[in-house]
Amino acid sequence: VSREPDRMRWWGWAEPDAPLDVSAAGEELLRREIGLGDGETPPVALEDVRLPDPRPLPELGAVEVRQDREARVRHAAGRSYPDLVRLRTGDGSGAPDAVVLPAGEDEVAAVLAACDSAGVAVVPFGGGTSVVGGVEALRGSHSAAIALDLARLDSLTVDRASLPATMGAGLAGRRAEARLQGRGLTLGHFPQSFEFGTIGGYVATRSAGQASTGYGRVDEMVLGARCLAPAGVLEAKPVPATAAGPSLLQLLVGSEGAFGAITEATLAVRPLPSARRYEGWSFRSFEEGCEAFRAMEQGHVSPDVARLSDVDETRMAMAMSSHGGLAERLGRAYLGSRGHGQGCIAIVGWEGEEDQVARRAADTRRVLRAQGGLALGERPGRAWLRARYLGPYQRDELLGRGAFAETLETATSWSNLRRLHDAVADTLRSALAARGTPALVACHVSHLYPSGASLYFTFLARAQPGEELEQWAVAKRAAMEAIVATGGTITHHHAVGHDHAEWLRAEIGELGVEALRAVKERLDPRGIMNPGKLLAA
Amino acid sequence: VSREPDRMRWWGWAEPDAPLDVSAAGEELLRREIGLGDGETPPVALEDVRLPDPRPLPELGAVEVRQDREARVRHAAGRSYPDLVRLRTGDGSGAPDAVVLPAGEDEVAAVLAACDSAGVAVVPFGGGTSVVGGVEALRGSHSAAIALDLARLDSLTVDRASLPATMGAGLAGRRAEARLQGRGLTLGHFPQSFEFGTIGGYVATRSAGQASTGYGRVDEMVLGARCLAPAGVLEAKPVPATAAGPSLLQLLVGSEGAFGAITEATLAVRPLPSARRYEGWSFRSFEEGCEAFRAMEQGHVSPDVARLSDVDETRMAMAMSSHGGLAERLGRAYLGSRGHGQGCIAIVGWEGEEDQVARRAADTRRVLRAQGGLALGERPGRAWLRARYLGPYQRDELLGRGAFAETLETATSWSNLRRLHDAVADTLRSALAARGTPALVACHVSHLYPSGASLYFTFLARAQPGEELEQWAVAKRAAMEAIVATGGTITHHHAVGHDHAEWLRAEIGELGVEALRAVKERLDPRGIMNPGKLLAA
Repeated sequence: VSREPDRMRWWGWAEPDAPLDVSAAGEELLRREIGLGDGETPPVALEDVRLPDPRPLPELGAVEVRQDREARVRHAAGRSYPDLVRLRTGDGSGAPDAVVLPAGEDEVAAVLAACDSAGVAVVPFGGGTSVVGGVEALRGSHSAAIALDLARLDSLTVDRASLPATMGAGLAGRRAEARLQGRGLTLGHFPQSFEFGTIGGYVATRSAGQASTGYGRVDEMVLGARCLAPAGVLEAKPVPATAAGPSLLQLLVGSEGAFGAITEATLAVRPLPSARRYEGWSFRSFEEGCEAFRAMEQGHVSPDVARLSDVDETRMAMAMSSHGGLAERLGRAYLGSRGHGQGCIAIVGWEGEEDQVARRAADTRRVLRAQGGLALGERPGRAWLRARYLGPYQRDELLGRGAFAETLETATSWSNLRRLHDAVADTLRSALAARGTPALVACHVSHLYPSGASLYFTFLARAQPGEELEQWAVAKRAAMEAIVATGGTITHHHAVGHDHAEWLRAEIGELGVEALRAVKERLDPRGIMNPGKLLAA
Repeated sequence: VSREPDRMRWWGWAEPDAPLDVSAAGEELLRREIGLGDGETPPVALEDVRLPDPRPLPELGAVEVRQDREARVRHAAGRSYPDLVRLRTGDGSGAPDAVVLPAGEDEVAAVLAACDSAGVAVVPFGGGTSVVGGVEALRGSHSAAIALDLARLDSLTVDRASLPATMGAGLAGRRAEARLQGRGLTLGHFPQSFEFGTIGGYVATRSAGQASTGYGRVDEMVLGARCLAPAGVLEAKPVPATAAGPSLLQLLVGSEGAFGAITEATLAVRPLPSARRYEGWSFRSFEEGCEAFRAMEQGHVSPDVARLSDVDETRMAMAMSSHGGLAERLGRAYLGSRGHGQGCIAIVGWEGEEDQVARRAADTRRVLRAQGGLALGERPGRAWLRARYLGPYQRDELLGRGAFAETLETATSWSNLRRLHDAVADTLRSALAARGTPALVACHVSHLYPSGASLYFTFLARAQPGEELEQWAVAKRAAMEAIVATGGTITHHHAVGHDHAEWLRAEIGELGVEALRAVKERLDPRGIMNPGKLLAA
């Protein structure tokens, strides 16, 4: 599978195009608030990753099978903090016994049939970008496990009149977008994993991109899907809408490889916007910003991208990007003079035809201003656009410096948003402070709905060498318990995977889990599909 | 259950506020094209309905149980053509053995437990407006059947900041809307069954209202739902959005009482619009109108209501409403002079704040004009608004005159729309002509999506006395086969019920049906919930 030039590092994200400098102010912040030192903790060499001996596999005929070290390591983990810790420290226990690369749906069916007979677990694999433990090769009660890498299922066809595109599951989002843009179209789905995440992965994990406020979530874009299960083919045919019973389509969306492998999906696409405009805004407080976003969304004048950083994220972003120049110092003085010295920064962005963008922007601005917002112009917007996919690159950098860096997210109603924000931020801070590793906890509101929004948390602390996984587990558990107790969803767009499986019961109840398990048992009677994920607990 | 003053006729819809006159031109059309005579075929008297003797029921404690003739007949059928034929001719074989009226969720649970132990079928009952055989009391393999009338579950609470309303399943849409409007809010869900349909029924049948192009379908409005199944409580908690696995919520939406009884749902509501404007437009041909609607929808300038009548519906509507006055004759002359003499009429309507309506209307009009549309002003729009719920009243009238009158609907992509339209219309015409009862088949495009739209067919013929059910079955089967063969969905907003159950396999495949059946078996192990519907075939 050639992914050059955008190939992932086996131990992290990818090589950045340019060095990722942390400003002096950022260094000072990290030193002061989380005690980050100058140490370096590089990853082990690929040859030093400890891999289990491969278990015997069934005969797979003409299907390409790879069992070399690099292929196995590259399919051993997603990109959560524990995944990265394991990879960097040479723990390859999550590696599959083989990587299987079917050339088409027939080969997928043949592989499933062979694995079903032989009792071998199958982990469908797209871009490998899961941050919830979705792709490591857990064997469950099975003798062996393969990664079913769908990269070769990369077709794309478009119905120009009706504007859906039917795409192979293994097509990377970036490639899908490039091919669509070549025809004057866009999918408009830009998750942070955009460079590596795949169409099948988007559908299987119920993904939402950075522009979901305008373009919608994948579960809103998807019109149809095909899924190959051990028991046969499931097909939700693409229709604009239907009342034909419970939604088979919405049962496949979010199924995370636990029912079968999604091989193809049909998603709505749109004309490629000819104009886009991104701006920064400032609010005197997080509350004020939340109220402004609520008014904007409920007034149906939202932009396509809308993000509001809380006080800590604003402070962190300002320090990290600051280069101490005169312009920035003047900018801060200006914000201070307007009562926004301790405020919150928001990014709003519109895409479309020139005149639509102008008009929509005017509508949005009217509401934001009425709610106390202060326009900061296009410069912060352009800076956000440039940096929109940099998070995972920066994380590699921070981990190499001895930091613990993780993200998690939830969603709730507008009326519960502040309460949930505080509960999660406070619990993360206390849990990590109690271990002697004080944390920086930053959050933004994004993905707006008339009824509420998501909260996306980033947290940083000093890593505890040798205890990184425990440190993570304690913080993660504390956050999840706060989310469940405060009425948030256990995940707004990261999915369930292994890491959230034990909380699925809190989300949909014991009987809800039982209902999904009944589906799994019918579609995958021997339980070979992605064991240990989604319905594991 | 008092529903005065909007109480249904036991044998049909309700008493119209004013006499439903058919114009002379309409009379002439019906005489000429379907051979309708002057005969009258009134319904039998209530006392003459043949009811099966009630079978023994389990003890239900304090829960109210009714077994009188009127209650049983009122719960014996929905409002499809075969339902109406059976009721009018005194066939009460679909009546439940009793009507049970729980006062709250605890009583629902008690009733389900008692019926589950006793092996008694339970048919959840909302407004009784199903047009697909969703509410008649089929017993399946059970000894008896009750109608579980949810009318007393009629609570309503609103979260004003986040704008969802949580409502009891038995609350009628009209009452919900009146209570919301009293607080300056609206649900914006206006199906033709608006006067009697309930919140629970909307959710259980995946309903779409006349304004769904703007306000969305119920499956888009719904944020959470509770469902009581024999195996326990299922709760999809209201969240703005979630990535927590396959959607339990979208498994409950459209479950049609086959998994359990939906007791409560949380739906997004909006500020009540202060302005609305409805207009008529004319297109030279159906193709031209479809292209205009597609351009409008894909250009994101759709109104909230958008309906385009085909040539036959336009002709029929004009004849039925014509009173032969000079103004009308001049209007026709005008249309003729503009090349719209044989054209198609569209209704478009916007709701919102005054300035929004004005601006959105200007945007829509620009596209419609560019696509060849001719503006007819507000008069046709106001006429449509006045008549929007009159269809079922008119049907009672037509049935009393000896007509066969039925509707059915589907949806498909824009690129397949014309092909599906012609296939269904042609097959209905041939199937009925072959029986010596030539048909008037009219259709409109409505419920627009970027990828396609729905097609709603109305067909009229002379009823064949004594063979009405066979006549219906032949026409219905022909239409369904054409829909399936031409790639339409088996139902866009009428649901599955009994009448579409045999085609569910064509929609979601054998394995898709099996997956839903697995859910049913887990939630309702003894199969007491609404047997013979949804997953029956």
